[in-house]
Amino acid sequence: MRLNLKRTVVLALFFAVANFVMAANSADGSKLWFTNFTLPSNYNGPKISSVVISEKSPTFDLIHNELTGSLDNLFSQKTKSKAKAVAGSVYVGTFNDEFIAQAISAENIKNSGSEGFVIKYLANEEITIIAAQTDKGCLYGTYHFLRALRTNPQAITSSEIVENPSYDRRILNHWDNLDGTVERGYAGHSIWLWDELPEKLNPRIIEYARANASIGINGTVLNNVNASPNILKAEYLQKVKVVADALRPYGIQVYLSVNFSSPKILGGLPDSDPLKPAVKSWWENKVAEIYQIIPDFGGFLVKANSEGQPGPQDYGRTHADGANMLADALNPYKGIVMWRAFVYNPSGGDRAKQAYKEFKPLDGQFRKNVMIQVKNGPVDFQPREPISPLFGAMEHTTLIPELQITKEYLGFSDHWAYLGTLFQEFLQTDTYQKGRNTTVARVTDGQIFNDSITCIAGVANIGQDINWCGSHSAQANWYVFGRLAWNPDLHAKEIANEWLEQTFSHNTTFIDEMSRVMMESREAVVNYMTPLGLHHLMGWSHHYGPEPWCEIPGARPDWLPTYYHKADSFGIGFNRSSTGSNAVEQYAEPLQSMFDDPQLCPEKFLLWFHHLPWDYTMSNGRELWDELCYKYSEGVTQAERFRATWQNMEEYVDERRFRETSEKLDTQVKEAIWWRDACLLYFQTFSKREIPAELDKPVHKLDELKRLKFDMTHHN
Amino acid sequence: MRLNLKRTVVLALFFAVANFVMAANSADGSKLWFTNFTLPSNYNGPKISSVVISEKSPTFDLIHNELTGSLDNLFSQKTKSKAKAVAGSVYVGTFNDEFIAQAISAENIKNSGSEGFVIKYLANEEITIIAAQTDKGCLYGTYHFLRALRTNPQAITSSEIVENPSYDRRILNHWDNLDGTVERGYAGHSIWLWDELPEKLNPRIIEYARANASIGINGTVLNNVNASPNILKAEYLQKVKVVADALRPYGIQVYLSVNFSSPKILGGLPDSDPLKPAVKSWWENKVAEIYQIIPDFGGFLVKANSEGQPGPQDYGRTHADGANMLADALNPYKGIVMWRAFVYNPSGGDRAKQAYKEFKPLDGQFRKNVMIQVKNGPVDFQPREPISPLFGAMEHTTLIPELQITKEYLGFSDHWAYLGTLFQEFLQTDTYQKGRNTTVARVTDGQIFNDSITCIAGVANIGQDINWCGSHSAQANWYVFGRLAWNPDLHAKEIANEWLEQTFSHNTTFIDEMSRVMMESREAVVNYMTPLGLHHLMGWSHHYGPEPWCEIPGARPDWLPTYYHKADSFGIGFNRSSTGSNAVEQYAEPLQSMFDDPQLCPEKFLLWFHHLPWDYTMSNGRELWDELCYKYSEGVTQAERFRATWQNMEEYVDERRFRETSEKLDTQVKEAIWWRDACLLYFQTFSKREIPAELDKPVHKLDELKRLKFDMTHHN
Repeated sequence: MRLNLKRTVVLALFFAVANFVMAANSADGSKLWFTNFTLPSNYNGPKISSVVISEKSPTFDLIHNELTGSLDNLFSQKTKSKAKAVAGSVYVGTFNDEFIAQAISAENIKNSGSEGFVIKYLANEEITIIAAQTDKGCLYGTYHFLRALRTNPQAITSSEIVENPSYDRRILNHWDNLDGTVERGYAGHSIWLWDELPEKLNPRIIEYARANASIGINGTVLNNVNASPNILKAEYLQKVKVVADALRPYGIQVYLSVNFSSPKILGGLPDSDPLKPAVKSWWENKVAEIYQIIPDFGGFLVKANSEGQPGPQDYGRTHADGANMLADALNPYKGIVMWRAFVYNPSGGDRAKQAYKEFKPLDGQFRKNVMIQVKNGPVDFQPREPISPLFGAMEHTTLIPELQITKEYLGFSDHWAYLGTLFQEFLQTDTYQKGRNTTVARVTDGQIFNDSITCIAGVANIGQDINWCGSHSAQANWYVFGRLAWNPDLHAKEIANEWLEQTFSHNTTFIDEMSRVMMESREAVVNYMTPLGLHHLMGWSHHYGPEPWCEIPGARPDWLPTYYHKADSFGIGFNRSSTGSNAVEQYAEPLQSMFDDPQLCPEKFLLWFHHLPWDYTMSNGRELWDELCYKYSEGVTQAERFRATWQNMEEYVDERRFRETSEKLDTQVKEAIWWRDACLLYFQTFSKREIPAELDKPVHKLDELKRLKFDMTHHN
Repeated sequence: MRLNLKRTVVLALFFAVANFVMAANSADGSKLWFTNFTLPSNYNGPKISSVVISEKSPTFDLIHNELTGSLDNLFSQKTKSKAKAVAGSVYVGTFNDEFIAQAISAENIKNSGSEGFVIKYLANEEITIIAAQTDKGCLYGTYHFLRALRTNPQAITSSEIVENPSYDRRILNHWDNLDGTVERGYAGHSIWLWDELPEKLNPRIIEYARANASIGINGTVLNNVNASPNILKAEYLQKVKVVADALRPYGIQVYLSVNFSSPKILGGLPDSDPLKPAVKSWWENKVAEIYQIIPDFGGFLVKANSEGQPGPQDYGRTHADGANMLADALNPYKGIVMWRAFVYNPSGGDRAKQAYKEFKPLDGQFRKNVMIQVKNGPVDFQPREPISPLFGAMEHTTLIPELQITKEYLGFSDHWAYLGTLFQEFLQTDTYQKGRNTTVARVTDGQIFNDSITCIAGVANIGQDINWCGSHSAQANWYVFGRLAWNPDLHAKEIANEWLEQTFSHNTTFIDEMSRVMMESREAVVNYMTPLGLHHLMGWSHHYGPEPWCEIPGARPDWLPTYYHKADSFGIGFNRSSTGSNAVEQYAEPLQSMFDDPQLCPEKFLLWFHHLPWDYTMSNGRELWDELCYKYSEGVTQAERFRATWQNMEEYVDERRFRETSEKLDTQVKEAIWWRDACLLYFQTFSKREIPAELDKPVHKLDELKRLKFDMTHHN
């Protein structure tokens, strides 16, 4: 079977690459968006020849090294370190600095938050100032400056740049297990190398910190939300401390996922009932122990009473009881609890409704330092979902949007799917919960509600692969998450452009062509996997490839595709309208009415909310079955086009990344066809209709596809 | 210039065809949907050998002739006329007939309106009964029966058929001038042949009456809404009388368009002020005169104070004043006034808002026999428009939906654009004016409001062409209008299927393939003419072909495309949102909020309601400019596909209609390319962006296209 063979090749390659980590060169992807570290040929920004930093701190030291090293490279000359600003200086410091205090307006100083910065070019003096309230702000300003030099140098000289992050906490969630595997990781094993800690720190952790800081990420949850209690053992906390110490100068706080049963499992208590004094005091002691060695520890991420994880409901307590107990323990140290809303069970009715039903009634019951972490959509990181109805609906509770950077459902690291469009579609969706223009971004970043701390989380796609992310294209998703976490109003296309330029080439043809590919790439995946609102058609457990037919004896029905697509001789789709599960009722108007009416429902969500007959007439006059065929075919056509465009880009890309990306695109085209064939042939057993003659015929046979089985253990 | 040449050929052909009218044969299109007058090969309906009709009337005579003649053909044997029902009889009569009264349930008799019918097959006796309250109902039952025999014979024997029309009055509007030209007619000159009347009746008028009756049309406005006062001269009324007499047995009432200045022009009064007693009495006398010779005369259609036509506002009176005056004159005879809401002027702000602004405040002021006739969309029969906001908004006034069967804006008779989808999209649009499920159909057919009479109108596409409509495909639009006027809940696809079967062939491959083409055909036109909510890009005056650049010195701005597309260096589209003309405010929720928000606005209406930047990100990740290019290209691809599909149909279609339709499709493909090139090259002068490389390049040059000028006088 050809497909099987291909997987084997990919996996073999994967391990070959993993062994090469230490032999990285400039074109292997290891340098991420620092790879094309050159000025554009038409550079018209300031000429920098010296660096002035008078203040001292580990972060200022780091800024100094970053600037001198980077500018040496960019300007091909030795950048001097000076005590006083002269023409050609970049001058970095806080607003306490006298020179800076005079140069920056009181207004801009006032408007700068603790992580904000101002970049001001003094044209007469030919001095560039990077200023902030804190050294951390100066660090972000430095990376902004270095990015601007390489992608938009005129921005530096043309007007004052004033930036503040939209979210206070911009956090990666690593689903890394203590045994080194990574759940839903497609880039090799965990970079933490727990076994070598605390004695030895993986040097790539420093590169990781730098990469994160350069895009504004300021927090990281080191371990999987399906958390081993062991992470809280003294022995592991010593390892965590070493990592935290390494990340600190880069402004990155460390957080941990905790197992709610830790008091019982680690502490030997009879149970972990959050209302029991012994349990509370176990947590208080544990928290005190953590802060003693990691004074800036960020807090806990908790997956409780979800997919088999323990939680307060095991003892008849609510999510609020559990979260508040942890919050009280963390509060003296300003630690936070990130409590996940990803809860559902097979007996709870429509899975898409359950998180709302569970958490909405608890609004107002959580401590101020508890945040509810909610996945973007109401099911689970599908190629496209409507927003979770919780966003905007809990005005007394801070919600953390949780995005998945790793592509569990969008082709792993094999398919080029730029998630900037997905993230942006989500963040800019108007919840209408407080009227017009209460977008997800605005109801979560503190503009609408009175949140004391705001936060956004992304599930990392990072591993030991030499290119960090399993493919070169996947690096863009780490990048765009950071950039949108800093400012959700940035445009996915601008971010694609700046990523392409920093990663590959200044050539505008290359950037234009490839950013067009990137912008369309997620839609292509939607088209060939789950068009028109379909979802959850993927393979059992590993979630790779199409298995819309999947039936596992005794399996939870809500883990099976048939639960979601509900294809039958009548039609297809999940009736979540008012005549069905009524999931639409959880949305504000006008979304509620729109989603409820098939005629008004955006066709991209049609089968998410409606079960419709195969001959249902679409807006373009086609019948639903035909349109489904068209969409699947369009996805294949798009993937083929992406490959063809990339083939034209050879002159702009180094040999290795060109070849590796070409191979990935070959895989993507093959698998797009696999998805198309599997889904159409399977659904055809219900629709009993022909695939329109003008479309390409399936190249596979349904029974062959059904026989495919993958061993995906290596992918963790 | 190739395009010009092509037009000449088409026009030459047109006159050649016109001369052939009298030499019609079964495959020239003259027999419309009676052409394939055969039983399907797998016929499983009743075997009919005799006809029993005991009642007498001109209509019953007609039914008798229709049945015996038709059944002779269908069953290839002489159908007997019998006095008593026997096995193999079709028995036609009113519920007064004793045999019928016994056979039909009281329930079904009670539910039959004056034009409804019941068809019941007595299996034991092998007798088919067609029964109704009136001979007119029997006529509709007869045509239903004949249609069912040919397309779905099992329906006759499997269960009782009970039908009533949804609209009371189902009216064609002929925009025929007294000089024989037809405004917006693309099928030759008027069939009325006024000059030969009253002495001689064009025999095709009988065929016309039969065709209309067979699809349930029961009224016709003989003359153009831009009405010559002369139609009301005694001399013309004598001509009208002859036509009315010919149509009467077919259940078709005659109506006339009147010029509001008739009292002044014909009667020699100083003016036509509707509140002046002299004017009123002139109309009273004129109406009396009409009814004396045409006792079942339907009423008047009036285009007043619109596009230069006279009206009550010339005298400071309102539309209600004018309409009510006419209504009072007609009321004693049960005549109605159909008063058009198609009013707008260049100084009235956004044209799309004007009809609502003018008429909504008058709700409740009209007489019971006044109906306001409203075009489907708020501008003017564009390939796609949102519904007019008047529908559902005037609960005390009966509204007449006005549809355009002739394709003024959809490629004349040259392009295959099946309007079933357009009509259905419109009729099934939910106005939400009285909450959910207050569709246009339901707010106009009497289900929601307390209308005393309901009415629907279609602007005819009929002329002297041997095929009646200028092309074979255009016949379907006459057909589907009638069928949807009878029952707006019929599906456009089913109607396409039955039209194809009756017109061409019983072959299921042919029907399946061609009904797929038909269902998509209107969207193709939208794509290559006015995608994404664009509108009014066509040529000046004749409205043929693309002229988005059109500027005529001194022209009304609201007749120029730039008024509508508003392309500029920033972007494209008409801002009718709350930040623009606020046309959205005229719609009910949730439509209002949906249309107002570019993110929620259906993309098919995006540029109707919004002016958006060229790099606006569409839902699929593409930039607006690219998406526009894709849509125009898709339209061309679709037209090419339609032609290819038709080429495969040669075996199912007679030589002449196959060839003529092939030629039309060749024209359509060429003109789709013309439209694509003209619009994209013109808009490109603003967007300054490239057409995506993967799409076909324009084959024309913009300056060449701009130089094209058409003499379209022959098309009237």
